[in-house]
Amino acid sequence: MNIYRYEENPLVTPADVKPYHEGFEVIGAFNAGVAEYNGEVLLLLRVAERPISNDPMIVKAPVFNAATQELDILEFRTDDARYDFSDPRVIRNVNHSATFEYLTSLSYIRVARSTDGHHFTIDDKPLVYPAQSLESFGIEDPRVTQIGDTYYIYFSAVSPVGVGESMVSTQDFVNFTHHGMIFGPDNKDVLIFPEKINGKYYALHRPTTKSTGNPEMWIAESDNLVYWGNHKHLAGLRDGMWDSGRMGGGAVPFRTEKGWLELYHGATLDHRYCMGALLLDLNDPSKVIARSNHPIMEPETDYEMNGFFGDVVFSCGALVDGDVVKMYYGVADTSMACAELNVKEILDSLTYE
Amino acid sequence: MNIYRYEENPLVTPADVKPYHEGFEVIGAFNAGVAEYNGEVLLLLRVAERPISNDPMIVKAPVFNAATQELDILEFRTDDARYDFSDPRVIRNVNHSATFEYLTSLSYIRVARSTDGHHFTIDDKPLVYPAQSLESFGIEDPRVTQIGDTYYIYFSAVSPVGVGESMVSTQDFVNFTHHGMIFGPDNKDVLIFPEKINGKYYALHRPTTKSTGNPEMWIAESDNLVYWGNHKHLAGLRDGMWDSGRMGGGAVPFRTEKGWLELYHGATLDHRYCMGALLLDLNDPSKVIARSNHPIMEPETDYEMNGFFGDVVFSCGALVDGDVVKMYYGVADTSMACAELNVKEILDSLTYE
Repeated sequence: MNIYRYEENPLVTPADVKPYHEGFEVIGAFNAGVAEYNGEVLLLLRVAERPISNDPMIVKAPVFNAATQELDILEFRTDDARYDFSDPRVIRNVNHSATFEYLTSLSYIRVARSTDGHHFTIDDKPLVYPAQSLESFGIEDPRVTQIGDTYYIYFSAVSPVGVGESMVSTQDFVNFTHHGMIFGPDNKDVLIFPEKINGKYYALHRPTTKSTGNPEMWIAESDNLVYWGNHKHLAGLRDGMWDSGRMGGGAVPFRTEKGWLELYHGATLDHRYCMGALLLDLNDPSKVIARSNHPIMEPETDYEMNGFFGDVVFSCGALVDGDVVKMYYGVADTSMACAELNVKEILDSLTYE
Repeated sequence: MNIYRYEENPLVTPADVKPYHEGFEVIGAFNAGVAEYNGEVLLLLRVAERPISNDPMIVKAPVFNAATQELDILEFRTDDARYDFSDPRVIRNVNHSATFEYLTSLSYIRVARSTDGHHFTIDDKPLVYPAQSLESFGIEDPRVTQIGDTYYIYFSAVSPVGVGESMVSTQDFVNFTHHGMIFGPDNKDVLIFPEKINGKYYALHRPTTKSTGNPEMWIAESDNLVYWGNHKHLAGLRDGMWDSGRMGGGAVPFRTEKGWLELYHGATLDHRYCMGALLLDLNDPSKVIARSNHPIMEPETDYEMNGFFGDVVFSCGALVDGDVVKMYYGVADTSMACAELNVKEILDSLTYE
């Protein structure tokens, strides 16, 4: 596989982004959805901001308060035995160590603009910001599907009651319609197909199940993009392989002559996130035709291996130009990069069922 | 609260139900949905059948095989250190003790009929039986919502990839339309309201979240009963109270002059399942008006306290006749019972917000 990583990588880093909140630092500008609008490439960045702590014994947790529409900042002492601070992203209750109790940063969506796809300038203000109680811990990992003139932007809505997927839409990136939570908790990594297939819209999604089952990919259908049903299991983890620990959709699926191509992320149980592909039937995307037995792309460069949470390549969107896929991707839960891949080479690399 | 438990309780027990599978025993006939059809009361029983084991060292797990459309019977030795058999309902992998790996019984839906609501005869064959891979561990806890001439029957579909909620519909209890999985995993305790409210259908549902959050009640909307969205958190657990451990919808909500009345189940962390009520706004059922601070009904009788999994009263359906609620309910994960309650008394017992 020939992978052309841009010389300018990383394209956007936290240092490029001015904090929106006073007293905060930007620790991540990553996992961006991608859109083309008015001749520009828009990266819809997930920007993560953390309240600055001048005391190493204090960890802070920002929480959006829907009643006041402001942020509350909670403080925890690192010697408080009730909590586990070992994962820098979350604060866990030691009695419920499989779940998190608070996040140490708040994410929202902010736009980086480019005319050449390589050099970006970053808007001063958020594009989409938490607005209600289901988003009190922030909104994460946006994806964008353009259908006609409308851009559907959907993202993980995180709050104490769970992680679900919510959606807004816009035609001008100024005025937005809110569609509420389209997939209830626990769900993330939703990807809406860019056109109807046999009269129905389709979306990939990634439930996280508790009673039984694993973090795997499912597919659902809709007739209005807001209400979803006919959920089917699409693709599961594979023991001993690169996607043995968890998996989920990455870029918005795009048409190829052989099928819908979905660039998805897989991780091992030790959290090494790689990218691979699924090929889905053009007329029935609930049928898997082929899949990557080996990753298409792995964390290899310094900016992919080191950061807030290292060893991660994680795409939320790609632009397809003929045979070239410009895959924008988050690196190390920190920054944004881009790599170009060849569609034919991806298709040839897959293992067909 | 005056509760009139029928003298005939329990109305249906496993001993009344002939096993459908050769070599199996019926261990549960419980958690039935309720419908009125052709002058009869129909209990849509969850019947749980277990492969008989003549060797106390062997535990068997029945699995529906979608490819062959038959049951496979797996065998486990109780001295196999890889597994935990302490909960008689499930087989757990000791390395993943929060989830289950297999069930020790297979559930499906079977009808019990009555002309007086007290004395039931049981059909020889299943009404709804596992039919596909999402139902390979069985289908559980059916509810029925009648809208016009159509009965919508929905139930937990259990398989290794998770527990979701699937739906069929019928007008005659003979011919069925399958609508697939309407709520993806993990979800159960779905309850569809019996009419549109301001142009939309509504359903209560109960996601089980893993990343954060608790087993609590949510509400969603639809325009066709098959595709669902605009998920909102409705009501949560309450520390120190009867619904501190888990909760979920029970009977199909019904109209009262004060609001939609929902009889729901709550349990403490030590698994004592009681019934209480939520009162929801008639015009916007995502608004909670009132709630039970104390259970309306608790496991008290011998048949409620002792059984396959004791200390459980669990309703999946009620018939409302003027001011009287005939609440059919599963007892001890084993049998069916009925109790009559007074709507006014329930409304008066609630704590208004």
